[in-house]
Amino acid sequence: MTLEQAQALDAVDPLAGYHDRFVQPEGVIYLDGNSLGLLPTETVAAGADIMERAWGQRLIRSWNEGWIDAPSRVGAMIAPLIGADADEVIAADSTSVNLYKLIVAALRLDPSRNVVVSEAGNFPTDLHIAEGAVAAVAGAQLKVVERGVLAEALGDETALLLLTHVHYKTAERFDMTAWTRVAHDAGALICWDLSHSAGAVAVELNAAGADLAVGCGYKYLNGGPGAPAFLYVAKRWQDRLHNPLSGWMGHAAPFEFADGYEAAAGMKRWLTGTPSVLGLAALESGLKLWDSIDLAQIEAKSAALWNIFHVAGTAAGLECVTPADPAKRGSHISFRHPNAYEIVQALIARGVIGDFRDPDILRFGLTPLTLSHADVWRAGEMMREITESGEYRKAEFAVRNAVT
Amino acid sequence: MTLEQAQALDAVDPLAGYHDRFVQPEGVIYLDGNSLGLLPTETVAAGADIMERAWGQRLIRSWNEGWIDAPSRVGAMIAPLIGADADEVIAADSTSVNLYKLIVAALRLDPSRNVVVSEAGNFPTDLHIAEGAVAAVAGAQLKVVERGVLAEALGDETALLLLTHVHYKTAERFDMTAWTRVAHDAGALICWDLSHSAGAVAVELNAAGADLAVGCGYKYLNGGPGAPAFLYVAKRWQDRLHNPLSGWMGHAAPFEFADGYEAAAGMKRWLTGTPSVLGLAALESGLKLWDSIDLAQIEAKSAALWNIFHVAGTAAGLECVTPADPAKRGSHISFRHPNAYEIVQALIARGVIGDFRDPDILRFGLTPLTLSHADVWRAGEMMREITESGEYRKAEFAVRNAVT
Repeated sequence: MTLEQAQALDAVDPLAGYHDRFVQPEGVIYLDGNSLGLLPTETVAAGADIMERAWGQRLIRSWNEGWIDAPSRVGAMIAPLIGADADEVIAADSTSVNLYKLIVAALRLDPSRNVVVSEAGNFPTDLHIAEGAVAAVAGAQLKVVERGVLAEALGDETALLLLTHVHYKTAERFDMTAWTRVAHDAGALICWDLSHSAGAVAVELNAAGADLAVGCGYKYLNGGPGAPAFLYVAKRWQDRLHNPLSGWMGHAAPFEFADGYEAAAGMKRWLTGTPSVLGLAALESGLKLWDSIDLAQIEAKSAALWNIFHVAGTAAGLECVTPADPAKRGSHISFRHPNAYEIVQALIARGVIGDFRDPDILRFGLTPLTLSHADVWRAGEMMREITESGEYRKAEFAVRNAVT
Repeated sequence: MTLEQAQALDAVDPLAGYHDRFVQPEGVIYLDGNSLGLLPTETVAAGADIMERAWGQRLIRSWNEGWIDAPSRVGAMIAPLIGADADEVIAADSTSVNLYKLIVAALRLDPSRNVVVSEAGNFPTDLHIAEGAVAAVAGAQLKVVERGVLAEALGDETALLLLTHVHYKTAERFDMTAWTRVAHDAGALICWDLSHSAGAVAVELNAAGADLAVGCGYKYLNGGPGAPAFLYVAKRWQDRLHNPLSGWMGHAAPFEFADGYEAAAGMKRWLTGTPSVLGLAALESGLKLWDSIDLAQIEAKSAALWNIFHVAGTAAGLECVTPADPAKRGSHISFRHPNAYEIVQALIARGVIGDFRDPDILRFGLTPLTLSHADVWRAGEMMREITESGEYRKAEFAVRNAVT
């Protein structure tokens, strides 16, 4: 692959027009959109509007002028990206808080099933929150096993199989339909964490027969740092599951100010406290970009970017830990190297921003909306130069940051 | 009281300079700062900076350039307003979610004490969340009683007394020292909801010997709609209480990505998921205004504004339900009237924004930083005119909004 070949791909890329709908910092090739997505240019105006007009001028009146429905409205915008109906998704809180809600709710469905099964090496907050959630249900337990023995870990006592669809380190993707069936065959529900999937790959929750899901707003959905997360509950469960974080915004009639809690119908019961209005506005603005996007084009471009960067990484002597089959991965690529941290720092010093994951992983988000093929080619060249030249061995690149 | 007298008070008001540090919408007298505080003028620039520079340009690097410490930094700014030490407060999630964390944690401290006592008519989310929290601890119960019998409801089985310091409807204020002692005498902990207190009155958690507290960022602290909330844990409890919402941001080493949860030391363990960075930035900007404010001046001005508006309300034939003694109330004033809803709507049509609380309460926030004495005098005059003339009887004022 040459730069000219990459540029030729850009010339026929149906998503090429999206590149300039994001703020692209000068001198930066941003391969970390799987960690924090770029700022959409239109979100600058949306941020000013929510602050200066809606908050500053309209003030409390804005609750009746759009704020109160923002969690449902934003949820309905996420729904088509994950194969859900508009009334099966709502935006709220953080991914971690939403996981807690759904795990506890699933454990309370049937007292004879009180085990949550998840995967060792799953994104830590999923396991940490599951630890907290099982402590909230008498007799409940968390069973964390290696991927290879997940299926046999399920049994008559399993309430929930908790899986992250695309692995945060390796980008390995579970077959959603197959694993949903595995859970159902054991009589369990399944909850998918879509944090590295939504906006990265075509997700089909309803087609797969999934039960529950959560996901993140600040990665591929470009909702901004700490954006509200989302949760999905398949329609057939909506009347049977109950939010343990039973706050007033999930009440059937929050402004009647009754002492007793009564859950709202539908997805609104999954709200808890007053939502982050500023965060919802930024997320809603980012989601508008997805209005007319074909997810098949996202997957096709992701695969093309992956091929370019995979060639460069291999040429640089890095060991790729991401599956070669596009259907078995998400939209990031990870390599293993003993000096992973230093190489990532040396790349950042050159303006190529990826990230490091303990202990030896270099991780790069290949976000189809924000990157050109030529961007990814240039980043790959720099990675090859840095690795081959030993440029990464400078002492300054070994200094550890608090957040890696 | 005449307009001239009110203006004379403004002329000698040590807080008068703050009025223009907020965006004051044209034609509006805003008496709802206890529901959603005004936009500080400096927050417009802070909002553009967090979005355009920190997110747009610095992107993921911003986590090491201030974001990761924002919850602690903002907590430390709130601490002096509530009589806490800097390392006893952290900003996180919503008030409702934080209440859940603290109630569950308190219930798990001593298995022989498993009852939470709270007040009938407390702000609904406190009671709703307490319902959810007791369901997470085997054998735990919620006992909700009238204020007059709260003390006798406490006993050997009480884990926690949950009180809202300033009542959301009536503005009635509990004596924090006396009620903390009542709880302690029964061997229970106390948790104060400071949502209508922080920035409204001088709060002295540590001087009162309080154990736990939560509160809201979007009212008197002017943090913006759905701003992050805060929680307080007295130092002596910090190693003994555990966050049930055990997410990765509360982990001792979140970026080591370990499967098992290990709680961070100090207040960081009360974090759960990725915090709302945009929300924290707006809240931090609002809190900067409090840097050199003497809370005694806040209380004195609140009392002066209250007197002006109380005279007007009484002249308008409204029944005041807020205590006359300044030490026994917060910084809002409420009246009862059978046509409360309509009168509030008629006031809004004239640019005087207060709010209605079911079934018959007119509520007005008298925020010392954002209001002049003349503002409050003018609003009082309009309330008298609307009530005396029957202007509020127009059919349009009876139409109910979704959010009241």
